[in-house]
Amino acid sequence: MHCPRLKFLLPTARQHSLFRAFDNEQFLSLSGSARVHEMKAGDTLYLQEAEIDRFYLIIQGVVKLYRVSCDGREIVLNVFTDKECVGESEIFTDKHTHSTNAAIVENATLLSFSSQAYKLLLQQSSACCYGVLVEIAARLQEKQNEIEALSQQSATDRVIRFLLSQVKDTDNKKDSVVIKLPLAKRLIAARLSMQPETFSRVITDFKRKGLMDVKGSQLNINCLADLRQMV
Amino acid sequence: MHCPRLKFLLPTARQHSLFRAFDNEQFLSLSGSARVHEMKAGDTLYLQEAEIDRFYLIIQGVVKLYRVSCDGREIVLNVFTDKECVGESEIFTDKHTHSTNAAIVENATLLSFSSQAYKLLLQQSSACCYGVLVEIAARLQEKQNEIEALSQQSATDRVIRFLLSQVKDTDNKKDSVVIKLPLAKRLIAARLSMQPETFSRVITDFKRKGLMDVKGSQLNINCLADLRQMV
Repeated sequence: MHCPRLKFLLPTARQHSLFRAFDNEQFLSLSGSARVHEMKAGDTLYLQEAEIDRFYLIIQGVVKLYRVSCDGREIVLNVFTDKECVGESEIFTDKHTHSTNAAIVENATLLSFSSQAYKLLLQQSSACCYGVLVEIAARLQEKQNEIEALSQQSATDRVIRFLLSQVKDTDNKKDSVVIKLPLAKRLIAARLSMQPETFSRVITDFKRKGLMDVKGSQLNINCLADLRQMV
Repeated sequence: MHCPRLKFLLPTARQHSLFRAFDNEQFLSLSGSARVHEMKAGDTLYLQEAEIDRFYLIIQGVVKLYRVSCDGREIVLNVFTDKECVGESEIFTDKHTHSTNAAIVENATLLSFSSQAYKLLLQQSSACCYGVLVEIAARLQEKQNEIEALSQQSATDRVIRFLLSQVKDTDNKKDSVVIKLPLAKRLIAARLSMQPETFSRVITDFKRKGLMDVKGSQLNINCLADLRQMV
């Protein structure tokens, strides 16, 4: 009756902070509403204005949230990847429909749960509810920190920090290194909360200054120390 | 025994979204831990690294959160005013100390409550806890929207939107209007999540273009329609 992968994937969900406060019985009851979604790049997860009835845990893959502007351009708002949740904070608000579109960027395996079943569990158990409250409050702090970083750090700072985070530990002591961008540039821009044009402008500026060479998604950083000194 | 103002101020707190899910008995038990703080501009509310034991509801006045940089500069991170809470999301995290300093910007009346008493109530009642969860999740959505605005709108856009929000309804159809900045420029910059230098640069640019004249905290906007067209 159940998808055979479900039994295999549920223990991963069990470890997630959104379920950690649940006891076994509570998690088992929620599992009854779980579904596995094997999706391909380009697939739609949900559309803006669609009714909210489930939320999603990304087991593996990449999901983008986006809106479409008046003139038909796609504006990517955020990008989520392995072990991140999509749409979970929306279920607690009094809106009944999604405020963005969600689509798959790289082939993905997701687990979804019924929003209704999840909310019911939280309403019945203060221990579950308090556990989720702690988790949501921690994210609120993270977002506040992100806003502070956005207001204090220039776009250039943020790009450098991102590029340095992509350097492998084993390459950390080398002078020149090669990194591969993990996502398309406009998705990285969204993850860094900047416009795609801004990300491109910063990279072009780095090239012009001789700091790096770019071949498609591959960046050759000529001097790691120089880049580190810039932040 | 109690401060005489406390009885007068508690009904205001009762209406706040952080307490709305409480029943009368629960709110009464929390009220036992409430204190009134009458504070003057410049007073310290709490210091970074101090133990978290209370959270604050601003009845009236202005409070800033700030850090001090290595070279001794004060960096304002956020500014809160009437009916906003300070420090409430920190109490749910597993940190035990404040991550910022908080100080009074304009003479303020605050109510504070014991974090411990508040958390205990939430842990005991799933109805209370769920009510607060809904509130905190809504703020998480707001912060997400704020981040999106930061990444999509330029600093100029954000300053214009702020200035337009300061135009009185009765002045809305006038061509030229006078507005008074409600806070010091660096505090407005913090509220708009930008650096003070950026705010000043945008205003100087507006002056240079003849859009407005500035006398201290008073701005004379020469043509409201021109400003509206820019966003």
